[in-house]
Amino acid sequence: MNKVILLDKRPAGVPEVSDFKFVEEEMPSAKAGEVLLKTRFVSVDPYLRGRMRDVKSYVAPFQLGEPITSALVVEVVRSLNDKIKEGDFFVGYLPWKEYQTSTGEGLTKIDPEAASLSAYLGVLGATGLTAYIGLKEIGLPKAGQTVVVSGAAGAVGNVVGQIAKIMGCRVIGLAGSDAKIETLKSKYQYDEGINYKTTKNLAAEIEKLCPEGVNIYFDNVGGEVSDAVYANLTYKARIIVCGAIALYNEDEPALAPRVEWRLVVNSATMTGFLLSDFADLLPAGVQQLTTWFKEGKLSQSETIIKGFDQIPEAFIGLFEGQNNGKMVVEI
Amino acid sequence: MNKVILLDKRPAGVPEVSDFKFVEEEMPSAKAGEVLLKTRFVSVDPYLRGRMRDVKSYVAPFQLGEPITSALVVEVVRSLNDKIKEGDFFVGYLPWKEYQTSTGEGLTKIDPEAASLSAYLGVLGATGLTAYIGLKEIGLPKAGQTVVVSGAAGAVGNVVGQIAKIMGCRVIGLAGSDAKIETLKSKYQYDEGINYKTTKNLAAEIEKLCPEGVNIYFDNVGGEVSDAVYANLTYKARIIVCGAIALYNEDEPALAPRVEWRLVVNSATMTGFLLSDFADLLPAGVQQLTTWFKEGKLSQSETIIKGFDQIPEAFIGLFEGQNNGKMVVEI
Repeated sequence: MNKVILLDKRPAGVPEVSDFKFVEEEMPSAKAGEVLLKTRFVSVDPYLRGRMRDVKSYVAPFQLGEPITSALVVEVVRSLNDKIKEGDFFVGYLPWKEYQTSTGEGLTKIDPEAASLSAYLGVLGATGLTAYIGLKEIGLPKAGQTVVVSGAAGAVGNVVGQIAKIMGCRVIGLAGSDAKIETLKSKYQYDEGINYKTTKNLAAEIEKLCPEGVNIYFDNVGGEVSDAVYANLTYKARIIVCGAIALYNEDEPALAPRVEWRLVVNSATMTGFLLSDFADLLPAGVQQLTTWFKEGKLSQSETIIKGFDQIPEAFIGLFEGQNNGKMVVEI
Repeated sequence: MNKVILLDKRPAGVPEVSDFKFVEEEMPSAKAGEVLLKTRFVSVDPYLRGRMRDVKSYVAPFQLGEPITSALVVEVVRSLNDKIKEGDFFVGYLPWKEYQTSTGEGLTKIDPEAASLSAYLGVLGATGLTAYIGLKEIGLPKAGQTVVVSGAAGAVGNVVGQIAKIMGCRVIGLAGSDAKIETLKSKYQYDEGINYKTTKNLAAEIEKLCPEGVNIYFDNVGGEVSDAVYANLTYKARIIVCGAIALYNEDEPALAPRVEWRLVVNSATMTGFLLSDFADLLPAGVQQLTTWFKEGKLSQSETIIKGFDQIPEAFIGLFEGQNNGKMVVEI
């Protein structure tokens, strides 16, 4: 039998395991022109929480009783398609199933020799592209400028820091534990890190570390830590609103001090960033990331949870900051 | 004796007449190379409230005991400068004095035949340029798109509406009285107007009038009305934060629902706009505004208060919405 994970209930607040349902179905078999895919790695991402909500958004919501879909690394275990070989690996947006059939449409072939399989969900996948394209196209970084990153030890954040350093910026990361702060500096090339959970006056601490103000704020979090960064913007600052993990579980947006006047007094810009708006830049982006990766300038960082049954827990763990780098589930 | 208006106290909340001090000084006299200027029109503008606050901003704060400075139309009543004739008119950022001397530096000559003197503080001055350059450079309007303007009957707002119509957009204005709504439609070419003070569910009303969502929001106000517009943004919406008159008098920014996720789900951008960042575009901007004005495509709208002594009251009146179009004081 084949294992499948469905959305059983729309979560209220932080998702719980009981919001998901494990079911078994007949093992699928490939028809002519199709391949049978075995799931090897599953990407769990904060944005999936948004799709569990039944509201208008940039992607359609998940339907109750239907499988969750995310980025998967799959292996071809049987092929009835001339163009695809058994043993080939692909990445694609696919349902949470142990096995599934496909014509190959919408899947991208990956090279297991060039990097580990899971890297294609992280630094060489949508995660790395989000960091690279968001920083480059919206952040417009220049050497010598100061970049602040929230969720700095997270999947996107750690790559933003590394790329900002490659681009010659000074990079300060915000994260939620001393261990993560240590990792920011030792592994991700961050110049400075601030533990926002233990820092009493976060705005003052940012001011101390960014005496000339913040040129670029790459925001992966979206909650109160952002207000402390907004207080330190400099002229023509660019804010990239990439994720809002702190808000995903709220029914109503939290109240916060209005940010509009901060933008006016600094001629600053705040932009909501979706990778899918930059589809034409993705091939060149993957190429650049792969080059840096092979040159050893970009390190892969991930938290690997094992077992198909653990996918919901791994996803829920994102909201508790259990990941260091990209969170993936190995099947 | 010459009359001068100083800043006497930093206002708490909405400014009061007692925050200003009227003093008299010796009548100035022009030295060699100088001219004696008589003030004819004084521009009062919401942004001056910001300069009365002793905080870091894009322009230095006014000093206590020093004259307030704003845009003035002045007449040369005596000239000891070969290049300037008596009877010439100029516009410039000058202190609130009935008479003053100048070398002419920093002043722009204006043509009293081409338009009324006060127009150079309004539709052909910084006000018109703010509307035109903010809409064009940050709003990036395209024919057929929907533009919402707050403070639509105000100095900048009425010009934004007229220019957006010239550019082929559909324009909806928010203003605070039925009389202003009537003026929006009869005089400023607005397609629709909403009285935000009497409309119970403002977000729903905007949704009704903008069924395809808001492409451009030109915000001259910055308070709760903005939240109702944010709820109706469409894909790649552009928000121009031009003024924040609703916030100028607050000591602390008000709390409001976080806007970040609205930007993310719409790939939208919010930009703080300062005319002074676009200095290189001003000459062409004045030329375009003058062309439209002469062609009758752009109408001048102003509320004229008379008397040097009335300058503080005229300024305070801005925060009560007493102006229809540009507020100026005629001396």
